[in-house]
Amino acid sequence: MNKMIRVNMGSLLVTCEKAPEQYQLLGGRALTSHIIATEIDPQCHPLGPYNKLVFAPGLLTGTTVPCNGRLSVGAKSPLTSGIKESNVGGNVSRALARLGIKGIVIEGLPKNSEWFVLIINKDRVYLSHAQHLTGLGTYDTCEQLRKSYGNSIKILSIGQAGEMGMSAASIAATNQEGIPSRHAGRGGLGAVMGSKKLKAIVIDDSDSNQRLLDIANSKEFNQISRAWAKRLVETKKSLTKFGTAQLVDVASAIGALPTRNFSRGNFAGAENINGIALERMTKERGGKTGHACSPGCVIRCSNIYFDKNGEYLTSGLEYETIALFGPNLEIDNLDPVAKLDRLCDDYGVDTIDVAHAVGILMEAGYIRFGDADKAVEVVAEIGKGSPLGRIIGQGAAITGRVFGVTRVHTVKGQALAGYDPRALKGTGVTYATSPMGADHTAGNVLPGRGGVDPHDQSGQVMASRDIQIAATVLDSLGLCNFVGPLPDEMVIISELLTAALDRPVSVEDVLEIGRQILKEEIDFNQRAGFDLIDNRLPEHMKIEKLGPDELVYDVPDEELDKIFDF
Amino acid sequence: MNKMIRVNMGSLLVTCEKAPEQYQLLGGRALTSHIIATEIDPQCHPLGPYNKLVFAPGLLTGTTVPCNGRLSVGAKSPLTSGIKESNVGGNVSRALARLGIKGIVIEGLPKNSEWFVLIINKDRVYLSHAQHLTGLGTYDTCEQLRKSYGNSIKILSIGQAGEMGMSAASIAATNQEGIPSRHAGRGGLGAVMGSKKLKAIVIDDSDSNQRLLDIANSKEFNQISRAWAKRLVETKKSLTKFGTAQLVDVASAIGALPTRNFSRGNFAGAENINGIALERMTKERGGKTGHACSPGCVIRCSNIYFDKNGEYLTSGLEYETIALFGPNLEIDNLDPVAKLDRLCDDYGVDTIDVAHAVGILMEAGYIRFGDADKAVEVVAEIGKGSPLGRIIGQGAAITGRVFGVTRVHTVKGQALAGYDPRALKGTGVTYATSPMGADHTAGNVLPGRGGVDPHDQSGQVMASRDIQIAATVLDSLGLCNFVGPLPDEMVIISELLTAALDRPVSVEDVLEIGRQILKEEIDFNQRAGFDLIDNRLPEHMKIEKLGPDELVYDVPDEELDKIFDF
Repeated sequence: MNKMIRVNMGSLLVTCEKAPEQYQLLGGRALTSHIIATEIDPQCHPLGPYNKLVFAPGLLTGTTVPCNGRLSVGAKSPLTSGIKESNVGGNVSRALARLGIKGIVIEGLPKNSEWFVLIINKDRVYLSHAQHLTGLGTYDTCEQLRKSYGNSIKILSIGQAGEMGMSAASIAATNQEGIPSRHAGRGGLGAVMGSKKLKAIVIDDSDSNQRLLDIANSKEFNQISRAWAKRLVETKKSLTKFGTAQLVDVASAIGALPTRNFSRGNFAGAENINGIALERMTKERGGKTGHACSPGCVIRCSNIYFDKNGEYLTSGLEYETIALFGPNLEIDNLDPVAKLDRLCDDYGVDTIDVAHAVGILMEAGYIRFGDADKAVEVVAEIGKGSPLGRIIGQGAAITGRVFGVTRVHTVKGQALAGYDPRALKGTGVTYATSPMGADHTAGNVLPGRGGVDPHDQSGQVMASRDIQIAATVLDSLGLCNFVGPLPDEMVIISELLTAALDRPVSVEDVLEIGRQILKEEIDFNQRAGFDLIDNRLPEHMKIEKLGPDELVYDVPDEELDKIFDF
Repeated sequence: MNKMIRVNMGSLLVTCEKAPEQYQLLGGRALTSHIIATEIDPQCHPLGPYNKLVFAPGLLTGTTVPCNGRLSVGAKSPLTSGIKESNVGGNVSRALARLGIKGIVIEGLPKNSEWFVLIINKDRVYLSHAQHLTGLGTYDTCEQLRKSYGNSIKILSIGQAGEMGMSAASIAATNQEGIPSRHAGRGGLGAVMGSKKLKAIVIDDSDSNQRLLDIANSKEFNQISRAWAKRLVETKKSLTKFGTAQLVDVASAIGALPTRNFSRGNFAGAENINGIALERMTKERGGKTGHACSPGCVIRCSNIYFDKNGEYLTSGLEYETIALFGPNLEIDNLDPVAKLDRLCDDYGVDTIDVAHAVGILMEAGYIRFGDADKAVEVVAEIGKGSPLGRIIGQGAAITGRVFGVTRVHTVKGQALAGYDPRALKGTGVTYATSPMGADHTAGNVLPGRGGVDPHDQSGQVMASRDIQIAATVLDSLGLCNFVGPLPDEMVIISELLTAALDRPVSVEDVLEIGRQILKEEIDFNQRAGFDLIDNRLPEHMKIEKLGPDELVYDVPDEELDKIFDF
């Protein structure tokens, strides 16, 4: 029996009930977005009593499908003021699935200043006082919680940023080693958790082995899964070896590597921070690439990064973090980038929005481009909650406002990921149009995808649309974006669902799942006050020329406006 | 011949041409809003190259009508992201009228970091370098400019806040003594001026005595004017004697005096900061009440405030400033309030939004309610441009975001004026629905106006609508809001315009002026992305009870949505 947990932080009432029938085929983003769209007033204050925070493992989490360990976290976003699904790996999603928990909804606001943790195990779900954890980063929080609840627990937690209501605050999920290094980073959902004074959710799935979806034809399902896993292992070898850091070279090749606050598309020091450099350094120092952040992952694109003394520094040093703390700040050294990643993970903030914020401080002349020490110094202010730290912790848009900088790269208040949209135009379409705000995982039209030339505006809208639909499907099933939000994978998924549900599920049916979720999300945003003119990249990207090809963002507004006419 | 001045800060081209025929009957807000609506891309970045800053004296500025010295300043607002008209007294509007200047439009952005002043006299309009003025407050700026251009000049200037692009930055106009104490405070227009690197506009109207409107039947016109002036002198005696500070008692009487960040509607220390206190203190110390901020003013509600040593401290210590730096911060002493006013005038920031911001710091526990020294200290950070100062200089909404405070009192990003809308519901309707964002001058339904009970929601929407229309008319004619945005005054204006234009102008015709401007403004905002759901007071004001009558804001949304159905 699948369960829904509801926790009202106002009354401190915790319920655990059979999931409603109509949620049966909803998982991950399909479930979080549906609950948001049907239960939350789109006009409510994101940190007020009417917002809700929803967690949901994917529909296929816990099955034999490869890379199924993603968790969706949703709410009305304090960063964008729109609907948000922030997707995270780690070991939590699988644990929830093993407990038969389809979703967790955190509602209301506490009446006083007491903080809590939510404990979930196979026998009980309850709130426990957590005043002693306040002010701690996610690393210490997890350490303390393990002392109280044992080493086998999986943890969702917030750091100081979430406690202080910062709009770039993330929610950390533990990885397979129990390190809070995987983050539902985007959209400030850590601040929503903080507003509800919930410091952490502790999940103990010991002695439980339930599943969220009964697989009708498990033999066939497992066969398809195995074949897919095999194919992924073969085709994603370089991702396994070099991690997502290999994208430094991919972005460089097309001049889309954000450099000096998105004023250039190539970086002289790129080879010091690319996948090859990362792999070499981890080999030399004792960390590793080829690390799986969640159980069941066969791609293993994560890593464990040691400092020059051979001590653990951070885990999951990913491309977006590298691109935006590296080239975008003109820092050509992975060590300070890894240090910045660690600080952000510990305070619980999104590296993307925070890195933009630091770039804006550099653009404002507050600190110098390339000054890694100062970058670390200003990010450390987040943990202290100083005025400067609170500004940066609000992300790019607010930092730009506060420092009077107009070269700010956000859509719907959320910072662009590590691809300059002038040189990767399809991803630019996704930034502009996704109901999530600028977000690469919502539909990354990487070179080679969608049959388009990254520099040429033609065909980008349709390419982005198709990948956005497919990415939404993956988010709902709990599958990692790296399995591929592309036509081939939609075929595999249709076969998997056909086997699982024992009824024909066509590719068209699969895509319709994605379309329906997008529609529901867009409708929420409309009721929250968004309209088509919010689907625009920053004004200056239409004028300021990038790189030797003098690229500007020239996908016509009229085409953007038609993207979701389905 | 009426002239329009256009200054392109990109090309540094200055033109002064005959005003177009179709501007003939447009003045003040009618002209600024029309130029904004027809020339500015509603989606442009307020501090980017496509915004324009427009100045326009009223249509009746410089005539014999009483209190005609108001100047309209307009742009797309960096605070609200919508259309803005910010209205200011002082001696500038009359000077422009005497030079026959109907409007000034500042366009484009400078290509480098040079700063300028614009000099206007009867012979020439030109830009002059102003690097030596950067970093100065408005007081020093005016002092320096008088040294260069003589004592008879009138000045519009920005302080450090405008230079730094703060969204609460104001534009100062000199009063009749040449003090930069009158401010186009609302909507951050000082930041627009700063983005264009225009430090000041110097107006020398010596030896010029033109007029903006030829009065056809001047004898009749002057007769009506004189009778009106006489009536105003008689009926506004207490305003002359006690200044706008008398509104402390008016607001207290209905429990609408914002106290402790709008959590109460009455203040124990009110009698230390009301009109009686102000008049007594100015008498004792050598300042004065009954001071006219602009030529031709017969109400003279302004004042000059001396400190306890008998030295000049500030001028124009007005109700909004007193209410929001006083009771709202639980400060029961006019001296620190006057000091805060002086600092804000000097840095060039809106006292309303900044006072809210300080209240939010108090709500966040960053400083204590009632701590006047700390309030002065944090406001002084604005001038320094420290991170804290930059936050506060962004006004209430951003300060709330940055400090994670949800009890923030803004509409469309602009802070509420000094009347709690739960106890003065018609003004609440204006806050919610005015295209300007929360703004009392857009339509203040003070007790006794509009035939409504301030505590009862019924009839408030229509009362606000009528006063909003009439206030828009006054703003367009250059008349001070204190002549009265009410039916009687609309009759007088119809008579005045009938005499001036030598054709019948009915009251209906007069109101139609106001309606048309409002329509144009609302249309601009719609194209900028606003819709009806932006016409809402903060969520918590519908729930949190105010005062012994447990007032909540209960004007129905559906009624708000119909306010401008005309």
